Amino acid sequence: MSEKRKVDVTELVLRDGHQSLCATRMAMEDMVPVCEDVDAAGYWSVECWGGATYDACIRFLNEDPWQRLRQFRELLPNSRLQMLLRGQNLLGYRHYEDSVVDRFVGKSVANGMDVFRVFDALNDVRNVERAIKAVKTEGAHAQGTICYTMSPLHTVEGYVQMARDLMDLGSDSLCLKDMAALLQPQPAYDIVKAIKEDLGQDVRIHLHCHATTGVTLVSLMKAIEAGADAVDTSISSLSLGPGHNPTESLVEMLDGTPYTTGLDVDELLPIKDHFAEVRPRYAQFASNIVGVETEIFKSQIPGGMISNMESQLRAQGAGDKLKEVLEEVPRVRKDAGYPPLVTPSSQIVGTQAVFNVLMGRYKVLTGEFADLMLGYYGRTIGERSPEVVETAEKQMKKSPITVRPADMQEPEWDLLSATAEATEGFNGTEEDVLTSAMFPQVAPSFFKSRPEGPKNVSRDPAEVAAESAAAAGAGGPGSPVRTPIKYSVTVNGTSHSVSVAPA
Amino acid sequence: MSEKRKVDVTELVLRDGHQSLCATRMAMEDMVPVCEDVDAAGYWSVECWGGATYDACIRFLNEDPWQRLRQFRELLPNSRLQMLLRGQNLLGYRHYEDSVVDRFVGKSVANGMDVFRVFDALNDVRNVERAIKAVKTEGAHAQGTICYTMSPLHTVEGYVQMARDLMDLGSDSLCLKDMAALLQPQPAYDIVKAIKEDLGQDVRIHLHCHATTGVTLVSLMKAIEAGADAVDTSISSLSLGPGHNPTESLVEMLDGTPYTTGLDVDELLPIKDHFAEVRPRYAQFASNIVGVETEIFKSQIPGGMISNMESQLRAQGAGDKLKEVLEEVPRVRKDAGYPPLVTPSSQIVGTQAVFNVLMGRYKVLTGEFADLMLGYYGRTIGERSPEVVETAEKQMKKSPITVRPADMQEPEWDLLSATAEATEGFNGTEEDVLTSAMFPQVAPSFFKSRPEGPKNVSRDPAEVAAESAAAAGAGGPGSPVRTPIKYSVTVNGTSHSVSVAPA
Repeated sequence: MSEKRKVDVTELVLRDGHQSLCATRMAMEDMVPVCEDVDAAGYWSVECWGGATYDACIRFLNEDPWQRLRQFRELLPNSRLQMLLRGQNLLGYRHYEDSVVDRFVGKSVANGMDVFRVFDALNDVRNVERAIKAVKTEGAHAQGTICYTMSPLHTVEGYVQMARDLMDLGSDSLCLKDMAALLQPQPAYDIVKAIKEDLGQDVRIHLHCHATTGVTLVSLMKAIEAGADAVDTSISSLSLGPGHNPTESLVEMLDGTPYTTGLDVDELLPIKDHFAEVRPRYAQFASNIVGVETEIFKSQIPGGMISNMESQLRAQGAGDKLKEVLEEVPRVRKDAGYPPLVTPSSQIVGTQAVFNVLMGRYKVLTGEFADLMLGYYGRTIGERSPEVVETAEKQMKKSPITVRPADMQEPEWDLLSATAEATEGFNGTEEDVLTSAMFPQVAPSFFKSRPEGPKNVSRDPAEVAAESAAAAGAGGPGSPVRTPIKYSVTVNGTSHSVSVAPA
Repeated sequence: MSEKRKVDVTELVLRDGHQSLCATRMAMEDMVPVCEDVDAAGYWSVECWGGATYDACIRFLNEDPWQRLRQFRELLPNSRLQMLLRGQNLLGYRHYEDSVVDRFVGKSVANGMDVFRVFDALNDVRNVERAIKAVKTEGAHAQGTICYTMSPLHTVEGYVQMARDLMDLGSDSLCLKDMAALLQPQPAYDIVKAIKEDLGQDVRIHLHCHATTGVTLVSLMKAIEAGADAVDTSISSLSLGPGHNPTESLVEMLDGTPYTTGLDVDELLPIKDHFAEVRPRYAQFASNIVGVETEIFKSQIPGGMISNMESQLRAQGAGDKLKEVLEEVPRVRKDAGYPPLVTPSSQIVGTQAVFNVLMGRYKVLTGEFADLMLGYYGRTIGERSPEVVETAEKQMKKSPITVRPADMQEPEWDLLSATAEATEGFNGTEEDVLTSAMFPQVAPSFFKSRPEGPKNVSRDPAEVAAESAAAAGAGGPGSPVRTPIKYSVTVNGTSHSVSVAPA
C-alpha cells in the first residue's frame, strides 16, 4: 500500500450547518454536549462563528456571541476554531474603518479564534486586505477566499489571478467558497488544478460547497483529485438540502482511493446521533427546500437566501411570486456587474429583485442596491448598467466612487465607543463596542435583556417526541391507509373524545 | 470542442423511484399525465415495471399490472420500456419451471416490454440463464445483471468473471446493480474499468445505484470515467434518501466534462413539477429514512428493506430493536455464505435476523431461510455455516442440494393454468395465469375485486394542500415560535371554535 494523501476536513455543523438548515437558531446549550466528541474526531478545524451566528445570538437567543466563542474555546481545546469574516464588513453589513477591523480581529484572537476565512462579497481583494493583515499581525491563520460564481466574465484565469492576489496579501491558505452549490465537478477540478499549477503545490486550498444542487460531493471529489488540501462538510444529521455534504459520506467516498480524511465514521456516530435528536426541535425554522434544487443554476441565489425571500414575499402578501423573483435575479445581477451572490450582495440583489417584481423594474432602488451600483461596496467584475447607475445617483444624490470604500471612512472607533457607552446595559468591554458597532439596531435591546440569560427558541423535546410517536403510529409503512385519529378535546371545560378521519 | 461521449440515462421514477420512496403505492392515474413529458425527454429507457409494482398493483391498487404495462406502452411510444426481472423467480418469490419463464417473458414482450434487466439475488448465473435466453428468443434486449455487494470473498476479478458468464449467456448489455448504495466511487471505477478491459470496450455497462449513503453520485461519475455507457437516475422531486440520484443533478454534474447525457434540464422541469405535486399525497408511505444513512455500510440492508423491518418489529411490539437487528444482519449473512442482499435474499436474511433477535439465534428458522441454507435458492459465493445447515435439515426434513433449483421442478404450467381457471374472476388469459402463479395468495381477491377498477390509496389533494398551507402559516422561518392553531370542531352536530396551543 502506498501512502495515502490526507484530505483535511472542516466540520461546519456548529456554524454553517445549522445556519443553512435551522435559520441559525441553534442555542449554545444544544451544542455544548457534543463538543467533546467533535473535539476528539480529528477535524482540521471546527467552524463555529460568523456573521449570522453573531446576529442570531443577540437578536433571537439572548446569548453574548463573545461568551459563545469563549465557551467553544474551552470545550474544544484540541481543535482549530474557525470563523467566517466578511472582510471590511466584519460581521456587519457596512464597511468599517481599518482600526475597527484591527480591533475586531484582535479581540477574536484574544477570545480564542484560530482560523479566519476572509471573503468579500464582490471578490474585491481591496476589501479583504486589511483583515488578512490584521489576522497575520495577531499570529492567527488567514484564509483568503474566492467566492465562486458563474457569468460570461468569470474564467479560470480570473480565479487564478485572484488566488495570486490573495497570496500576495499574506494569506496562509486559500478557500474556494461555493455558497450556492453552483460549483460543478469540472470547474472545481480546473480551478484547483490551475491555482496549484500557477502558485505551487504547497499553496493550501480549502473547498467550501453547499449541497443544494446535489452535485457538489462530486465537485469535492474532483477538487481532491486536482489537489485540494481540505474540504468542508457537515455531520449527516444536519446536512444536505441548502446545507452541506455529509461528513460521513465524504469519508466513505474516499474509501479505497489514494486519499483519506483520516476520520473514523464510528467516532462520528455520536455527533450524528446528537444532531439527529436536536434537529426536529428546530423544524419550524427549516428551509422549505428539501432534496435538491437544480434550478438555482439559473437564479444563483444561495440556499439560505431563498427562504428569506419567501418570508419577504409572504410579508407583502405575494408568496406566489417567488418564481418571478427568481427569474428577475439574474437580470439584476447582470445590471450590477455580475457580483457573486453571497452576504450581503445576495440580500442586496435579491431584495432589489423583489422590489422590481412588486413595484416595477428599478422604479424604486433600495439604498443598499443604489450604493452597490455607485461603487460603495467595491469593484465588480463587469460594468454596471449606466442607466441604473444614473437612477441610483439621482435617488441617492451622490456620485459613483472607484476608490476602496473604506478609504472614504473617517476614524470611527471613538464615536463607536461613545455610542456603546451611552447604551443601557453596556458592559464596558471592547467586545460590546464591537457588538454595538456591527449591530447598532439590535445591540441596545440585547444589552438590556442580556442579564436574563440565553433563550432557547427550539420546541420542547417532550412535545416533539409525542408528535413523532403519534405520526409513527398513524402513518407508518404498511399501516392501514386511513386511520382515524382520536383526540381528547376540551371545549368550554367539558372533555370530548373526538375521532377524526378523512371522509 | 471535441466530441463528447454520450452517457445514456434510464429514468426510474415510474418504478424504482416510487417503490423506494412511496412503498410502490403510486397509482397509474398519478403517472399518466407525465408520460408525454417523460417520452419526450430523451431517456435511453424508462423503467416502469417490476416485481414490487406488480405486487402492489394487485395487492393495494386493484390495478391489473398487465393493463398498466399496455398503458405505458401506449403513452410512451418513443421510449424503450424497461423492467426488472428476478431471473427464475420472475416477479414472485420462488423458482419457476423453465416453461413458465418462457411464457412470462413472451407475454411481457407481447404487451410492450423492451428491456429486461435480469438478476438473481444470489448472483447465481444458472438462475438467470433461462430468462436471458427467453428474452433473446423474443427479440428483446436482455441485460445481464451483477448484484454488487461487499464481503471478504467479493473481488473485482470475481465480478469480471460474472460479467463474462453473463455475456456468454447472450446478454445484450450488463448492469452493475447497487441496490443498497454501497458501491463507493473507487470500486465503481475499478469494476467498470476491469470489465471493459477484459470483455472489450463495446460491452455496454449500465450502472444502477441507490442514494441512501450519499456517495453514489460520485460513483456514477467514476463509473462514467471508467467507461460506463448508461446510468440510472430518478427525477429530483422523487429522488434521494433510499431512492436514487436526481436526474437533473446528473445532467449538471457532467456539464463541462467530456461526457454528456444529452438531456436538457428545462425539459425535465415538467416531470419534476409533476412529482413534486404528487409526492406529498403519498407521504404516509414514505420511508423513515431521509437524508443519508452511512451506517448501512455495515448492515448492507437496502433502503427499501429497512422500512419493512421497522414494520415487522413494530408489529411484534419491538420497534426499539431495529439497531440490534441491523447488527445481527451481517452475522446472518456470513452464515448464509455472503449472499448479496436484494429481493428476496434481503427479506430472507433480514427476517431471520429479526427472528434471531426476538427468539434467540437460530432457535427458529423461517422456511425461506432454511431453504436458502440448503441451496434451494442457488449457490452462494461462500460456504454456508455447517451448524445452521444442519439445523435447517432437521427443521425442514430435507437434504441440501447443489443443482440448479429449477432443475428440481416438474413441468407446472398445466397445474398453474388449472388453478387460475378455478379462481373466481379469472379472465381466461395467460397473463392472468401468470398473476395467479406468481401471487397465489393475492390473485384470488384481486380477480374478484378487479371489476371495481383502480383504487388510488394516496391522500386527497385538497386535504394535503390545506395542511401544507396551515404548516406554512404556522411555522415559516421568522414566524413566532409558538402559534396557537385554530380549528373548527364539530361534536354531536354542534360547531365549536377551538384554539390549540402547546402548554
